[in-house]
Amino acid sequence: MAEKVKLYGVEVSPFVCRVKYALNLKGVNYEFIQEDLDNKSPDLLKYNPVLKNVPVLRLLHNGNPISESLVIIEYIDDVWKGVPIMPKDAYEKAQARFWAKFFVDKCHPAIFKAIGSHGEKQDVAEAHEHLQFLENELNVKGSKFFGGDNMGLIDICATFIGYWVGAAEEALGIEVVTKDKFPKVIEWAHNCINCQVVKDDLPSRESLIAYYTRRFGKA
Amino acid sequence: MAEKVKLYGVEVSPFVCRVKYALNLKGVNYEFIQEDLDNKSPDLLKYNPVLKNVPVLRLLHNGNPISESLVIIEYIDDVWKGVPIMPKDAYEKAQARFWAKFFVDKCHPAIFKAIGSHGEKQDVAEAHEHLQFLENELNVKGSKFFGGDNMGLIDICATFIGYWVGAAEEALGIEVVTKDKFPKVIEWAHNCINCQVVKDDLPSRESLIAYYTRRFGKA
Repeated sequence: MAEKVKLYGVEVSPFVCRVKYALNLKGVNYEFIQEDLDNKSPDLLKYNPVLKNVPVLRLLHNGNPISESLVIIEYIDDVWKGVPIMPKDAYEKAQARFWAKFFVDKCHPAIFKAIGSHGEKQDVAEAHEHLQFLENELNVKGSKFFGGDNMGLIDICATFIGYWVGAAEEALGIEVVTKDKFPKVIEWAHNCINCQVVKDDLPSRESLIAYYTRRFGKA
Repeated sequence: MAEKVKLYGVEVSPFVCRVKYALNLKGVNYEFIQEDLDNKSPDLLKYNPVLKNVPVLRLLHNGNPISESLVIIEYIDDVWKGVPIMPKDAYEKAQARFWAKFFVDKCHPAIFKAIGSHGEKQDVAEAHEHLQFLENELNVKGSKFFGGDNMGLIDICATFIGYWVGAAEEALGIEVVTKDKFPKVIEWAHNCINCQVVKDDLPSRESLIAYYTRRFGKA
Protein backbone atom coordinates (compact mmCIF):
# COMPACT_ATOMS: atom_id res chain seq x y z
CA MET A 1 0.00 0.00 0.00
CA ALA A 2 1.46 3.34 -1.07
CA GLU A 3 0.16 5.26 1.86
CA LYS A 4 1.34 8.21 3.87
CA VAL A 5 1.54 7.22 7.50
CA LYS A 6 2.24 9.39 10.54
CA LEU A 7 3.20 8.09 13.98
CA TYR A 8 2.94 10.49 16.92
CA GLY A 9 5.17 9.52 19.80
CA VAL A 10 8.18 10.07 22.00
CA GLU A 11 11.51 8.41 21.20
CA VAL A 12 12.06 6.68 24.55
CA SER A 13 8.57 5.22 24.96
CA PRO A 14 8.41 1.41 24.76
CA PHE A 15 4.72 1.76 23.86
CA VAL A 16 5.54 3.92 20.86
CA CYS A 17 8.42 1.65 19.85
CA ARG A 18 6.03 -1.31 19.77
CA VAL A 19 4.23 0.42 16.92
CA LYS A 20 7.52 1.29 15.19
CA TYR A 21 8.52 -2.38 15.20
CA ALA A 22 5.18 -3.50 13.80
CA LEU A 23 5.53 -0.95 10.98
CA ASN A 24 9.13 -2.07 10.40
CA LEU A 25 8.06 -5.73 10.25
CA LYS A 26 5.65 -4.80 7.46
CA GLY A 27 8.19 -2.57 5.71
CA VAL A 28 5.97 0.49 6.05
CA ASN A 29 7.55 3.91 5.67
CA TYR A 30 6.20 6.45 8.11
CA GLU A 31 6.81 9.94 9.35
CA PHE A 32 7.60 10.15 13.06
CA ILE A 33 6.11 13.18 14.81
CA GLN A 34 7.94 13.87 18.07
CA GLU A 35 5.58 14.83 20.87
CA ASP A 36 6.34 16.56 24.16
CA LEU A 37 4.18 14.96 26.83
CA ASP A 38 4.67 17.95 29.15
CA ASN A 39 3.27 20.19 26.46
CA LYS A 40 0.99 18.11 24.25
CA SER A 41 0.45 19.35 20.72
CA PRO A 42 -3.00 20.39 19.48
CA ASP A 43 -2.73 17.52 16.97
CA LEU A 44 -2.21 14.92 19.70
CA LEU A 45 -5.18 16.25 21.69
CA LYS A 46 -7.27 16.30 18.54
CA TYR A 47 -6.35 12.81 17.39
CA ASN A 48 -6.49 11.15 20.81
CA PRO A 49 -9.00 13.22 22.79
CA VAL A 50 -9.95 10.36 25.11
CA LEU A 51 -6.58 9.14 26.36
CA LYS A 52 -4.48 12.15 25.32
CA ASN A 53 -1.34 10.05 25.04
CA VAL A 54 0.99 8.42 22.53
CA PRO A 55 1.27 6.40 20.36
CA VAL A 56 -1.21 7.61 17.78
CA LEU A 57 -1.12 6.32 14.21
CA ARG A 58 -2.70 8.14 11.27
CA LEU A 59 -3.10 7.02 7.71
CA LEU A 60 -3.42 10.13 5.63
CA HIS A 61 -5.79 8.81 2.97
CA ASN A 62 -8.60 8.88 5.51
CA GLY A 63 -6.93 10.92 8.25
CA ASN A 64 -8.50 8.68 10.86
CA PRO A 65 -6.35 8.33 13.95
CA ILE A 66 -5.91 5.18 16.03
CA SER A 67 -4.51 4.89 19.54
CA GLU A 68 -3.65 2.14 22.05
CA SER A 69 -0.54 0.23 21.01
CA LEU A 70 -2.08 -3.27 20.83
CA VAL A 71 -5.03 -1.94 18.83
CA ILE A 72 -2.66 -0.17 16.46
CA ILE A 73 -0.51 -3.27 15.98
CA GLU A 74 -3.51 -5.46 15.09
CA TYR A 75 -4.66 -2.71 12.73
CA ILE A 76 -1.26 -2.65 11.04
CA ASP A 77 -1.44 -6.42 10.68
CA ASP A 78 -4.91 -6.13 9.13
CA VAL A 79 -3.98 -3.40 6.66
CA TRP A 80 -0.54 -4.46 5.45
CA LYS A 81 -0.03 -8.02 4.29
CA GLY A 82 3.45 -9.55 4.15
CA VAL A 83 4.99 -10.91 7.36
CA PRO A 84 2.03 -11.78 9.60
CA ILE A 85 2.06 -10.55 13.20
CA MET A 86 -1.05 -12.44 14.34
CA PRO A 87 -1.51 -16.19 13.78
CA LYS A 88 -4.16 -17.24 11.25
CA ASP A 89 -5.69 -19.99 13.38
CA ALA A 90 -8.49 -18.71 15.64
CA TYR A 91 -7.30 -20.51 18.77
CA GLU A 92 -3.67 -19.48 18.30
CA LYS A 93 -4.83 -15.92 17.69
CA ALA A 94 -6.81 -15.97 20.95
CA GLN A 95 -3.74 -17.28 22.76
CA ALA A 96 -1.58 -14.55 21.22
CA ARG A 97 -4.08 -11.93 22.41
CA PHE A 98 -4.34 -13.47 25.87
CA TRP A 99 -0.59 -13.52 26.45
CA ALA A 100 -0.02 -10.06 24.96
CA LYS A 101 -2.75 -8.71 27.24
CA PHE A 102 -1.16 -10.51 30.19
CA PHE A 103 2.20 -8.95 29.37
CA VAL A 104 0.79 -5.47 28.81
CA ASP A 105 -1.67 -5.42 31.73
CA LYS A 106 0.28 -7.38 34.33
CA CYS A 107 3.98 -7.91 33.60
CA HIS A 108 4.93 -4.54 32.14
CA PRO A 109 3.25 -2.42 34.87
CA ALA A 110 4.58 -4.68 37.65
CA ILE A 111 8.14 -4.45 36.33
CA PHE A 112 7.78 -0.69 35.92
CA LYS A 113 6.47 -0.38 39.48
CA ALA A 114 9.38 -2.43 40.82
CA ILE A 115 11.78 -0.16 38.93
CA GLY A 116 9.99 2.98 40.14
CA SER A 117 10.26 1.88 43.76
CA HIS A 118 14.00 1.19 43.31
CA GLY A 119 13.46 -2.54 43.73
CA GLU A 120 11.17 -2.47 46.78
CA LYS A 121 10.88 -6.09 47.92
CA GLN A 122 7.13 -6.54 47.58
CA ASP A 123 7.02 -4.86 44.16
CA VAL A 124 9.82 -7.09 42.89
CA ALA A 125 8.01 -10.15 44.27
CA GLU A 126 4.87 -9.18 42.40
CA ALA A 127 6.77 -8.65 39.15
CA HIS A 128 8.46 -12.03 39.65
CA GLU A 129 5.12 -13.73 40.20
CA HIS A 130 3.94 -12.57 36.79
CA LEU A 131 7.28 -13.25 35.09
CA GLN A 132 7.22 -16.81 36.40
CA PHE A 133 4.17 -17.52 34.22
CA LEU A 134 6.09 -16.32 31.16
CA GLU A 135 9.14 -18.37 32.18
CA ASN A 136 7.02 -21.51 32.54
CA GLU A 137 5.24 -20.93 29.25
CA LEU A 138 8.51 -20.28 27.38
CA ASN A 139 9.93 -23.46 28.89
CA VAL A 140 7.04 -25.47 27.50
CA LYS A 141 7.17 -23.80 24.10
CA GLY A 142 10.93 -23.94 23.59
CA SER A 143 10.67 -21.68 20.53
CA LYS A 144 12.69 -18.60 19.59
CA PHE A 145 9.69 -16.32 19.88
CA PHE A 146 6.57 -16.75 21.97
CA GLY A 147 4.43 -18.07 19.15
CA GLY A 148 7.12 -19.86 17.13
CA ASP A 149 9.79 -18.77 14.67
CA ASN A 150 8.45 -15.27 13.95
CA MET A 151 7.84 -12.17 16.01
CA GLY A 152 4.27 -11.77 17.13
CA LEU A 153 2.22 -9.44 19.32
CA ILE A 154 3.76 -10.30 22.69
CA ASP A 155 7.31 -10.47 21.27
CA ILE A 156 6.98 -6.90 20.04
CA CYS A 157 5.98 -5.89 23.57
CA ALA A 158 8.74 -7.95 25.20
CA THR A 159 11.38 -5.70 23.66
CA PHE A 160 10.69 -3.70 26.85
CA ILE A 161 12.37 -6.44 28.91
CA GLY A 162 15.21 -6.93 26.44
CA TYR A 163 16.28 -3.29 26.35
CA TRP A 164 14.37 -0.75 28.47
CA VAL A 165 14.53 -2.78 31.68
CA GLY A 166 18.30 -3.22 31.42
CA ALA A 167 18.79 0.52 30.98
CA ALA A 168 16.54 1.25 33.97
CA GLU A 169 18.38 -1.32 36.09
CA GLU A 170 21.67 0.30 35.18
CA ALA A 171 20.33 3.81 35.88
CA LEU A 172 19.03 2.85 39.30
CA GLY A 173 21.61 0.24 40.27
CA ILE A 174 19.03 -2.49 40.83
CA GLU A 175 18.12 -5.84 39.32
CA VAL A 176 14.50 -6.78 38.73
CA VAL A 177 14.55 -9.34 35.92
CA THR A 178 17.44 -11.63 36.81
CA LYS A 179 19.01 -14.25 34.57
CA ASP A 180 19.26 -16.82 37.35
CA LYS A 181 15.53 -16.66 38.08
CA PHE A 182 14.27 -16.12 34.53
CA PRO A 183 16.76 -17.59 32.05
CA LYS A 184 14.11 -18.29 29.41
CA VAL A 185 12.56 -14.84 29.69
CA ILE A 186 15.98 -13.21 29.32
CA GLU A 187 16.90 -15.37 26.32
CA TRP A 188 13.54 -14.66 24.70
CA ALA A 189 13.73 -10.91 25.34
CA HIS A 190 17.18 -10.88 23.73
CA ASN A 191 15.84 -12.73 20.70
CA CYS A 192 13.19 -10.03 20.43
CA ILE A 193 15.59 -7.10 20.47
CA ASN A 194 18.07 -8.87 18.19
CA CYS A 195 15.49 -8.98 15.44
CA GLN A 196 16.79 -6.63 12.69
CA VAL A 197 13.62 -4.51 12.56
CA VAL A 198 14.03 -3.83 16.28
CA LYS A 199 17.82 -3.68 16.61
CA ASP A 200 18.14 -0.92 14.01
CA ASP A 201 15.48 1.23 15.63
CA LEU A 202 16.16 1.27 19.37
CA PRO A 203 16.41 4.57 21.25
CA SER A 204 19.96 5.22 22.48
CA ARG A 205 20.80 3.56 25.78
CA GLU A 206 22.01 6.94 27.07
CA SER A 207 18.61 8.53 26.42
CA LEU A 208 16.90 5.74 28.36
CA ILE A 209 19.33 5.94 31.28
CA ALA A 210 18.85 9.72 31.36
CA TYR A 211 15.08 9.25 31.24
CA TYR A 212 14.93 6.74 34.09
CA THR A 213 17.38 8.74 36.20
CA ARG A 214 15.31 11.89 35.69
CA ARG A 215 12.10 10.07 36.45
CA PHE A 216 13.08 7.93 39.42
CA GLY A 217 16.27 9.51 40.76
CA LYS A 218 19.77 8.10 40.85
CA ALA A 219 20.86 4.78 42.33
CA MET B 1 -20.28 -25.89 13.71
CA ALA B 2 -21.61 -28.90 15.64
CA GLU B 3 -19.30 -28.47 18.54
CA LYS B 4 -19.52 -29.16 22.23
CA VAL B 5 -18.82 -25.95 24.12
CA LYS B 6 -18.39 -25.42 27.85
CA LEU B 7 -18.48 -22.07 29.61
CA TYR B 8 -17.13 -21.88 33.16
CA GLY B 9 -18.56 -18.99 35.11
CA VAL B 10 -20.75 -17.58 37.84
CA GLU B 11 -24.34 -16.53 37.12
CA VAL B 12 -24.11 -12.95 38.41
CA SER B 13 -20.82 -11.99 36.73
CA PRO B 14 -21.14 -9.36 34.00
CA PHE B 15 -17.85 -10.64 32.55
CA VAL B 16 -19.24 -14.14 32.18
CA CYS B 17 -22.52 -12.82 30.80
CA ARG B 18 -20.59 -10.98 28.08
CA VAL B 19 -19.49 -14.36 26.77
CA LYS B 20 -23.02 -15.79 27.09
CA TYR B 21 -24.39 -12.97 24.93
CA ALA B 22 -21.72 -13.47 22.28
CA LEU B 23 -22.57 -17.19 22.15
CA ASN B 24 -26.29 -16.35 22.01
CA LEU B 25 -25.72 -13.89 19.16
CA LYS B 26 -24.11 -16.70 17.20
CA GLY B 27 -26.77 -19.22 18.20
CA VAL B 28 -24.21 -21.50 19.84
CA ASN B 29 -25.44 -24.08 22.34
CA TYR B 30 -23.18 -24.47 25.32
CA GLU B 31 -23.03 -26.11 28.69
CA PHE B 32 -22.70 -23.69 31.60
CA ILE B 33 -20.47 -24.90 34.41
CA GLN B 34 -21.21 -23.03 37.62
CA GLU B 35 -18.06 -22.12 39.52
CA ASP B 36 -17.66 -21.11 43.16
CA LEU B 37 -15.02 -18.38 43.30
CA ASP B 38 -14.50 -18.97 47.04
CA ASN B 39 -13.68 -22.57 46.31
CA LYS B 40 -12.36 -22.77 42.77
CA SER B 41 -12.69 -26.10 41.00
CA PRO B 42 -9.64 -28.09 39.88
CA ASP B 43 -10.93 -27.63 36.31
CA LEU B 44 -10.94 -23.83 36.58
CA LEU B 45 -7.41 -23.81 38.01
CA LYS B 46 -6.30 -26.21 35.29
CA TYR B 47 -7.89 -24.30 32.41
CA ASN B 48 -6.98 -20.81 33.60
CA PRO B 49 -3.80 -21.29 35.65
CA VAL B 50 -2.55 -17.75 35.05
CA LEU B 51 -5.55 -15.63 36.04
CA LYS B 52 -7.51 -18.29 37.95
CA ASN B 53 -10.82 -16.59 37.23
CA VAL B 54 -13.93 -16.81 35.08
CA PRO B 55 -15.03 -16.77 32.31
CA VAL B 56 -13.25 -19.66 30.65
CA LEU B 57 -14.48 -21.09 27.36
CA ARG B 58 -13.62 -24.56 26.13
CA LEU B 59 -14.37 -26.19 22.82
CA LEU B 60 -14.31 -29.90 23.41
CA HIS B 61 -12.94 -30.99 20.03
CA ASN B 62 -9.56 -29.68 21.03
CA GLY B 63 -10.13 -29.12 24.74
CA ASN B 64 -8.16 -25.90 24.57
CA PRO B 65 -9.36 -23.32 27.08
CA ILE B 66 -9.55 -19.57 26.49
CA SER B 67 -9.92 -16.87 29.11
CA GLU B 68 -10.36 -13.06 29.23
CA SER B 69 -13.82 -12.01 28.11
CA LEU B 70 -12.79 -9.73 25.20
CA VAL B 71 -10.39 -12.37 23.89
CA ILE B 72 -13.12 -15.00 24.12
CA ILE B 73 -15.66 -12.81 22.30
CA GLU B 74 -13.29 -12.14 19.38
CA TYR B 75 -12.55 -15.87 19.27
CA ILE B 76 -16.27 -16.66 19.12
CA ASP B 77 -16.61 -14.15 16.30
CA ASP B 78 -13.72 -15.81 14.46
CA VAL B 79 -15.01 -19.37 14.85
CA TRP B 80 -18.74 -18.99 14.29
CA LYS B 81 -19.95 -17.12 11.26
CA GLY B 82 -23.47 -15.68 11.12
CA VAL B 83 -24.20 -12.37 12.84
CA PRO B 84 -20.83 -10.57 12.95
CA ILE B 85 -19.69 -9.05 16.25
CA MET B 86 -16.64 -7.25 14.88
CA PRO B 87 -16.77 -4.92 11.85
CA LYS B 88 -15.08 -6.14 8.67
CA ASP B 89 -13.33 -2.87 7.84
CA ALA B 90 -9.88 -2.61 9.46
CA TYR B 91 -10.33 0.94 10.74
CA GLU B 92 -13.81 0.28 12.14
CA LYS B 93 -12.47 -2.87 13.78
CA ALA B 94 -9.68 -0.87 15.41
CA GLN B 95 -12.24 1.65 16.65
CA ALA B 96 -14.42 -1.14 18.04
CA ARG B 97 -11.41 -2.55 19.90
CA PHE B 98 -10.35 0.88 21.16
CA TRP B 99 -13.78 1.72 22.60
CA ALA B 100 -14.34 -1.75 24.06
CA LYS B 101 -10.95 -1.52 25.75
CA PHE B 102 -11.84 1.95 27.02
CA PHE B 103 -15.09 0.64 28.44
CA VAL B 104 -13.52 -2.45 30.00
CA ASP B 105 -10.34 -0.80 31.35
CA LYS B 106 -11.69 2.61 32.37
CA CYS B 107 -15.48 2.92 32.56
CA HIS B 108 -16.43 -0.43 34.07
CA PRO B 109 -13.82 -0.34 36.89
CA ALA B 110 -14.55 3.33 37.66
CA ILE B 111 -18.30 2.67 37.92
CA PHE B 112 -17.65 -0.42 40.06
CA LYS B 113 -15.37 1.62 42.34
CA ALA B 114 -17.99 4.34 42.70
CA ILE B 115 -20.55 1.68 43.60
CA GLY B 116 -18.16 0.00 46.03
CA SER B 117 -17.51 3.26 47.85
CA HIS B 118 -21.29 3.89 48.14
CA GLY B 119 -21.07 6.83 45.78
CA GLU B 120 -18.03 8.58 47.27
CA LYS B 121 -17.83 11.95 45.53
CA GLN B 122 -14.40 11.63 43.95
CA ASP B 123 -15.07 8.10 42.69
CA VAL B 124 -18.33 9.19 41.11
CA ALA B 125 -16.57 12.17 39.50
CA GLU B 126 -13.99 9.83 37.98
CA ALA B 127 -16.66 7.49 36.64
CA HIS B 128 -18.51 10.48 35.20
CA GLU B 129 -15.37 11.73 33.51
CA HIS B 130 -15.08 8.45 31.61
CA LEU B 131 -18.80 8.19 30.92
CA GLN B 132 -18.79 11.67 29.41
CA PHE B 133 -16.56 10.39 26.58
CA LEU B 134 -19.12 7.68 25.82
CA GLU B 135 -21.96 10.21 26.02
CA ASN B 136 -20.21 12.52 23.56
CA GLU B 137 -19.38 9.69 21.18
CA LEU B 138 -22.94 8.34 21.26
CA ASN B 139 -24.24 11.83 20.57
CA VAL B 140 -22.08 12.05 17.45
CA LYS B 141 -22.98 8.55 16.29
CA GLY B 142 -26.74 8.72 16.90
CA SER B 143 -27.09 4.99 16.24
CA LYS B 144 -28.93 2.32 18.23
CA PHE B 145 -25.73 0.50 19.10
CA PHE B 146 -22.21 1.88 19.37
CA GLY B 147 -21.13 0.74 15.94
CA GLY B 148 -24.47 1.00 14.12
CA ASP B 149 -27.59 -1.17 13.93
CA ASN B 150 -26.12 -4.36 15.39
CA MET B 151 -24.60 -5.33 18.71
CA GLY B 152 -20.83 -5.26 18.74
CA LEU B 153 -18.00 -5.74 21.22
CA ILE B 154 -18.63 -2.68 23.41
CA ASP B 155 -22.43 -3.11 23.31
CA ILE B 156 -22.07 -6.59 24.77
CA CYS B 157 -19.99 -5.08 27.60
CA ALA B 158 -22.40 -2.16 28.10
CA THR B 159 -25.09 -4.55 29.31
CA PHE B 160 -23.32 -3.95 32.64
CA ILE B 161 -24.64 -0.38 32.69
CA GLY B 162 -28.08 -1.35 31.47
CA TYR B 163 -28.73 -3.97 34.16
CA TRP B 164 -26.03 -4.60 36.77
CA VAL B 165 -25.50 -0.96 37.66
CA GLY B 166 -29.22 -0.38 38.22
CA ALA B 167 -29.39 -3.36 40.58
CA ALA B 168 -26.32 -2.15 42.49
CA GLU B 169 -27.76 1.36 42.74
CA GLU B 170 -30.99 -0.07 44.15
CA ALA B 171 -29.13 -2.32 46.60
CA LEU B 172 -27.03 0.53 47.94
CA GLY B 173 -29.49 3.40 47.56
CA ILE B 174 -27.18 5.48 45.39
CA GLU B 175 -27.12 6.82 41.85
CA VAL B 176 -23.93 6.70 39.79
CA VAL B 177 -25.06 6.71 36.14
CA THR B 178 -27.82 9.30 36.06
CA LYS B 179 -30.26 9.90 33.21
CA ASP B 180 -30.00 13.67 33.46
CA LYS B 181 -26.22 13.62 33.02
CA PHE B 182 -25.95 10.70 30.59
CA PRO B 183 -29.19 10.40 28.61
CA LYS B 184 -27.48 8.86 25.58
CA VAL B 185 -25.54 6.32 27.65
CA ILE B 186 -28.73 5.27 29.46
CA GLU B 187 -30.68 4.95 26.20
CA TRP B 188 -27.87 2.97 24.62
CA ALA B 189 -27.45 0.65 27.61
CA HIS B 190 -31.18 -0.06 27.51
CA ASN B 191 -30.96 -0.88 23.81
CA CYS B 192 -28.22 -3.33 24.69
CA ILE B 193 -30.17 -5.19 27.36
CA ASN B 194 -33.37 -5.14 25.30
CA CYS B 195 -31.69 -7.19 22.63
CA GLN B 196 -33.45 -10.60 22.66
CA VAL B 197 -30.24 -12.61 23.13
CA VAL B 198 -29.49 -10.56 26.24
CA LYS B 199 -33.00 -10.03 27.65
CA ASP B 200 -33.72 -13.75 27.79
CA ASP B 201 -30.49 -14.54 29.60
CA LEU B 202 -30.07 -12.00 32.40
CA PRO B 203 -29.42 -13.13 35.96
CA SER B 204 -32.37 -12.37 38.25
CA ARG B 205 -32.44 -8.85 39.63
CA GLU B 206 -32.85 -10.33 43.12
CA SER B 207 -29.63 -12.31 42.79
CA LEU B 208 -27.75 -9.15 41.77
CA ILE B 209 -29.22 -7.07 44.58
CA ALA B 210 -28.32 -9.84 47.03
CA TYR B 211 -24.80 -10.00 45.57
CA TYR B 212 -24.14 -6.26 45.80
CA THR B 213 -25.66 -6.04 49.29
CA ARG B 214 -23.48 -8.92 50.48
CA ARG B 215 -20.41 -7.45 48.86
CA PHE B 216 -20.75 -3.76 49.73
CA GLY B 217 -23.22 -3.67 52.62
CA LYS B 218 -26.70 -2.19 52.71
CA ALA B 219 -27.71 1.36 51.83
